[in-house]
Amino acid sequence: MNRLEQFGHGGDRWTAGERFGIHPADFVDFSANINPLGPPESVVHLLQEALKDSGVPLLSQYPDPDCRGLRQALAEKLDVEPEYLAVGNGGAEWIDLAAAVFQPDRVGLMLPSFAEYAAAAEKRGLPIVTATVNPQRGWQPDRRQLLQLIHRSDLVYLGHPNNPTGTLLPLALLEEAAEEAAQAGTVLVVDEAFLDFVEHGEQHSLIRRISVFPTTVLLRSMTKFYALPGLRLGFAVSHPDNIRRLRQYQIPWSVNGLAQAAGVAALKDRDFEKRTRTWLTEERSFLLRELDQLDGVEVFPGEVNYFLLKLADQPRGRFTAQWLQERMGRQGIMIRDCSTYSGLDERYVRVAVRSREENRRLVEALRRVLGRVGVDQR
Amino acid sequence: MNRLEQFGHGGDRWTAGERFGIHPADFVDFSANINPLGPPESVVHLLQEALKDSGVPLLSQYPDPDCRGLRQALAEKLDVEPEYLAVGNGGAEWIDLAAAVFQPDRVGLMLPSFAEYAAAAEKRGLPIVTATVNPQRGWQPDRRQLLQLIHRSDLVYLGHPNNPTGTLLPLALLEEAAEEAAQAGTVLVVDEAFLDFVEHGEQHSLIRRISVFPTTVLLRSMTKFYALPGLRLGFAVSHPDNIRRLRQYQIPWSVNGLAQAAGVAALKDRDFEKRTRTWLTEERSFLLRELDQLDGVEVFPGEVNYFLLKLADQPRGRFTAQWLQERMGRQGIMIRDCSTYSGLDERYVRVAVRSREENRRLVEALRRVLGRVGVDQR
Repeated sequence: MNRLEQFGHGGDRWTAGERFGIHPADFVDFSANINPLGPPESVVHLLQEALKDSGVPLLSQYPDPDCRGLRQALAEKLDVEPEYLAVGNGGAEWIDLAAAVFQPDRVGLMLPSFAEYAAAAEKRGLPIVTATVNPQRGWQPDRRQLLQLIHRSDLVYLGHPNNPTGTLLPLALLEEAAEEAAQAGTVLVVDEAFLDFVEHGEQHSLIRRISVFPTTVLLRSMTKFYALPGLRLGFAVSHPDNIRRLRQYQIPWSVNGLAQAAGVAALKDRDFEKRTRTWLTEERSFLLRELDQLDGVEVFPGEVNYFLLKLADQPRGRFTAQWLQERMGRQGIMIRDCSTYSGLDERYVRVAVRSREENRRLVEALRRVLGRVGVDQR
Repeated sequence: MNRLEQFGHGGDRWTAGERFGIHPADFVDFSANINPLGPPESVVHLLQEALKDSGVPLLSQYPDPDCRGLRQALAEKLDVEPEYLAVGNGGAEWIDLAAAVFQPDRVGLMLPSFAEYAAAAEKRGLPIVTATVNPQRGWQPDRRQLLQLIHRSDLVYLGHPNNPTGTLLPLALLEEAAEEAAQAGTVLVVDEAFLDFVEHGEQHSLIRRISVFPTTVLLRSMTKFYALPGLRLGFAVSHPDNIRRLRQYQIPWSVNGLAQAAGVAALKDRDFEKRTRTWLTEERSFLLRELDQLDGVEVFPGEVNYFLLKLADQPRGRFTAQWLQERMGRQGIMIRDCSTYSGLDERYVRVAVRSREENRRLVEALRRVLGRVGVDQR
């Protein structure tokens, strides 16, 4: 039987549909970390209108190979020069391109981390050097461990906030890492795919000082916060020399025309941003409180729009993530089995923060499933 | 001054807009070879409806990482097993992945050919082995030349029909090449991006016998015939072992959700197919006849929806493709300067077949520009 993560990730409604005999559209998906408020109405409206244009140029014409409009909009919003920016087919493209372009002899990973970092190395046969964080230190790497990882490899991927732990590194440590990476000639890829969900996220980023870190590459996603994973949209921020090299390796028209247009519209929608902040503040604390009250589950709160959960050992054995995922899936609820993350084991699952109604449904289902366990066992 | 092809290709309205001070949307584009009848109304309608769905799942949910629906639809239409198929982010992704996955020591090209073949080799520092076809033989490679190219390299890209010459190889020669490639252990990538525009195109393809050619990979595009270059959609047909290897190198969610849905709808639209055949038969012969009557231009008719043109030498010198492109661009007409194709020179341009009205406009503009040359020169 195939795992729900047979293609490496959560959010695969099609595999879940095959497995549970439920229509793919009918799942409530806590396995992918997508803003449930989106996509912004302004974006949907723009695309609807564009599809009414005579000849539908957004479909029938090649997209701008240089993403000029979107790069300009990003440059203004983020206050960086457009030459520091390149847009791609989702964050996934940049993770892969970094390994392709910089051709490291060794790739460094801080485990657990997003599976695509290891995948980018493995498919090229590149040796992987790892360090592991653990719950006792709140999933934080210590300084020495991080600097050593930088010295022991030629390219390090760092999730910031990290997936699936949700943790942020202190900015001072990140700056020290970026300086060390520059001195060691190591490329430091800081994946900020979820940074938009962090309160005052930009203050935790190296973006303000990116020009002084010549070997640092920041990756951002526009598909989580703006709920556009179906369209694919992500970008990289780095020194223009790195951007040029990355662009040379990118396939032409990597970013489709609708994604480019949607991105420009999304960046303007300050109201959507505000509503998302309000939702996240409320629902994060609601869901955290509810999950904390469940028996048999330890919650790691992190800093973002998802929580890592650990299933507690039971008197008569252990309940696995796959077991829990199966029970939830039958009820039309998808959660992420985190046993596939190196550095975690079969006790870990991840759930996204969603709407109040959906969060309630998640908690009730978890209570039912985990409660029944207790009863079965007596 | 940047070439209109500064990003390697035609169809770049944004660069043309910057250059000629005309709004990018206002050009008539003969520099990209897109079906002017499209996109099919059925596709536009489907996408319009999908954007009205509550929560807009086509945007807000991850696309199927395995493109199950589209692969199934392709399998039925093309009468091949789904395991022989993989879908990608435009044909461009497959050209690049072929070089990435098969890691040839030498890449073989039959010049002139689509620029991305060389680009895929060059960005990896792979040596390129070339053979050149010429107008005296109707841009056809001879048998020995083709088989030698296969023996002298580990991966050969062949355009079929070839871009920019529009020529098709005889099927018997193609089969011999595929057999020779299998024996030599050379990967033969046959790029059939424009095959849909060839009358009874499938009869010219190796697709019917693809299972007996273990080192042959066919590439197809859905963006030209269905006029969806803005969405990005292409696929590969090959032995399941090759498909698996290509898929391992592909980034996750490479194909956006709208492209997948659009592809399924497009394949069903037999009426659009019929109307396209009728249009192409009529307009190809109309435009060919008109172009043939122009002074100073030699037309190579090829077999598809574009023509390669050669500017004749003039008594007092030579008129270059760039010069002609510039004169046409000022009138809001984009044509392809083919001097950037290795194997051609500054006398070659390429124009697509478009609607009757647009074709007339092209011919009139060419007549004016080339006619004026004559006058200036007297």
